[in-house]
Amino acid sequence: MKVTALIMAGGKGERFWPRSRVNKPKQFLCLTGDGKTMIQQTVERIRPLVDYEDIFIATNEKYKGLVKEHLPEIPEENILLEPVGRNTAPCIGLGAIHVRRKYEDAVMLVLPSDHQIKYKGMFINVLKDAIDVANEGENLVTIGITPNAPETGYGYIKFLPDHMIGRAFKADKFVEKPDLNTAKKYLETEEYMWNSGMFVWKASTILDSIEKHLPEIYGGLKRIEESIGSDDEESILSGVFESIPSESIDYGVLEKEDSIYVLPGTFGWDDVGSWLSVGRMRQANDAGNVVSGNAMTVNVKNCIIEGEDKLIAAIGIHDIVIVDTEDATLICAKDSTGDIKKIVENLRICNRDQYL
Amino acid sequence: MKVTALIMAGGKGERFWPRSRVNKPKQFLCLTGDGKTMIQQTVERIRPLVDYEDIFIATNEKYKGLVKEHLPEIPEENILLEPVGRNTAPCIGLGAIHVRRKYEDAVMLVLPSDHQIKYKGMFINVLKDAIDVANEGENLVTIGITPNAPETGYGYIKFLPDHMIGRAFKADKFVEKPDLNTAKKYLETEEYMWNSGMFVWKASTILDSIEKHLPEIYGGLKRIEESIGSDDEESILSGVFESIPSESIDYGVLEKEDSIYVLPGTFGWDDVGSWLSVGRMRQANDAGNVVSGNAMTVNVKNCIIEGEDKLIAAIGIHDIVIVDTEDATLICAKDSTGDIKKIVENLRICNRDQYL
Repeated sequence: MKVTALIMAGGKGERFWPRSRVNKPKQFLCLTGDGKTMIQQTVERIRPLVDYEDIFIATNEKYKGLVKEHLPEIPEENILLEPVGRNTAPCIGLGAIHVRRKYEDAVMLVLPSDHQIKYKGMFINVLKDAIDVANEGENLVTIGITPNAPETGYGYIKFLPDHMIGRAFKADKFVEKPDLNTAKKYLETEEYMWNSGMFVWKASTILDSIEKHLPEIYGGLKRIEESIGSDDEESILSGVFESIPSESIDYGVLEKEDSIYVLPGTFGWDDVGSWLSVGRMRQANDAGNVVSGNAMTVNVKNCIIEGEDKLIAAIGIHDIVIVDTEDATLICAKDSTGDIKKIVENLRICNRDQYL
Repeated sequence: MKVTALIMAGGKGERFWPRSRVNKPKQFLCLTGDGKTMIQQTVERIRPLVDYEDIFIATNEKYKGLVKEHLPEIPEENILLEPVGRNTAPCIGLGAIHVRRKYEDAVMLVLPSDHQIKYKGMFINVLKDAIDVANEGENLVTIGITPNAPETGYGYIKFLPDHMIGRAFKADKFVEKPDLNTAKKYLETEEYMWNSGMFVWKASTILDSIEKHLPEIYGGLKRIEESIGSDDEESILSGVFESIPSESIDYGVLEKEDSIYVLPGTFGWDDVGSWLSVGRMRQANDAGNVVSGNAMTVNVKNCIIEGEDKLIAAIGIHDIVIVDTEDATLICAKDSTGDIKKIVENLRICNRDQYL
């Protein structure tokens, strides 16, 4: 069966402020040091399995120009615009009806646009396994990540070690972000994987599940599907998205389904959730610093310096992230990157929109 | 007797990089938060004692424009240009011959252009006492600062507690910057003051002393004095300064003289030797931060942030100095400000003159 992909690229990425802005979120940034943006890397990674014409990009209307600029090979009609963000269930449903319209049915790789994957060959192998399981009946397949730490920032998937199809384990249940003690227990049992937010299924399978568990959303998707190519397409899309509820695919569909399989992904995954990821992804120098741009350091250790043209002179500091942009500079302790959103909030409250 | 002043304004002030540059050293910066530059404050402080026309500014040729801009009230002929820096003895000698030429003799207040003084009335009182002592015979008067810590960055003056004229103690000897143990001993004896580099004497007295102890320099000064107003003035000034040795007034003259008196200055003195001084001079907020310019902070403690137009967002950091300028940003641990000169050195070595 035909293999297509839906890349979800509507995220705001406030955690990469000041490099990321409302008008240029994380997926459109070069963060890994190889000169390619996150979304370009995402597309490039799956090219061994999917043609450009079968890759759909779901994004916010305001990022249409950026998608075209970063991915000129993707046909314009494959850029699916969400009039408002309604979480992953409507977004994936929108992708699925476009796949159904084009091919009646096809396998869909559903991928975030802003993750980092180190071992690209292994990633392809896992996707191939997932495609096999998705093709074999009406299975919904998720890519899990084998945990190496009790992370509290991810959802977890409990799997049944003895129920397998191919290399995929049957999922027992989905659980939300745990507290630290719970996360530690999950790690000990060896029966949990992180939920990476990457999925593989047939368009028909996921649409059947949406119809079953989220009938209101499915009804809206049907109306959109029928309008595609008509004069009303845009207004119906807007009307439906305005009216349907926000719902994630995990909790709206997957938690309620039985035939979920999870494939362990051991391909060097990073969700690039903060500037600390940038430190992990790039080569540090002997002092533990990851430095780019115009910077000069004296006795600096374990810092991340993201400079641009302006000279950044750092002296005697350690474990700090410095990000310089044209109109704003961030100086943030590594253990405080979670507070970057407070700056963004504050800027919003103060109506300092030029920095958002 | 007439009271004049010589303000020494030839310093480079690398310790305030990146705000200070080769073409705009510390004395021409606003550092105290009151909107006036250091040199403007220096002139304003002594105005109760000295008229503008009796204030001489000794500086490097390249700062002539800055002096005129910052001190438009000072007559242009009072700006004395040192063709090359030859330390304080030739500089003070140059001032003294101009005073002698104008008034035959007069008292000279000799003052650095980049110090901070908190209690201006007390400062004037100390200067008045010093003028009295300088007028009474051939005394050389220095302003000492009563130490409150074993500072290793200043020279010290040992004084004789039982030999006084007015409020001035007779100086026993001048000593160079001590190591920490020596400085601690000095503090215990209660017979040492810091050498502030501020002096009061008659032009005739200091010129006699220069003639006696530094005859080569005095010979040069005489040649300059004779050329003033002639066509050769500039070339003779250049020739003399090129040929005479560098010598400080402290070690070239004062150490060798007998009639030196030291007046204790308790007027809130700060030599503004580093960015840490800026933290001391300005009002800190409840978190111990001294912040100016466009800045936003979250969980920041005991930091100095000198912003300009660009937004500086600081999160979770403490005891760090951040100085933003148009083309360079400094991020320096408070205990490492001494290493700022390493950045400046490095920039010089790398021929990155635009940042110097």
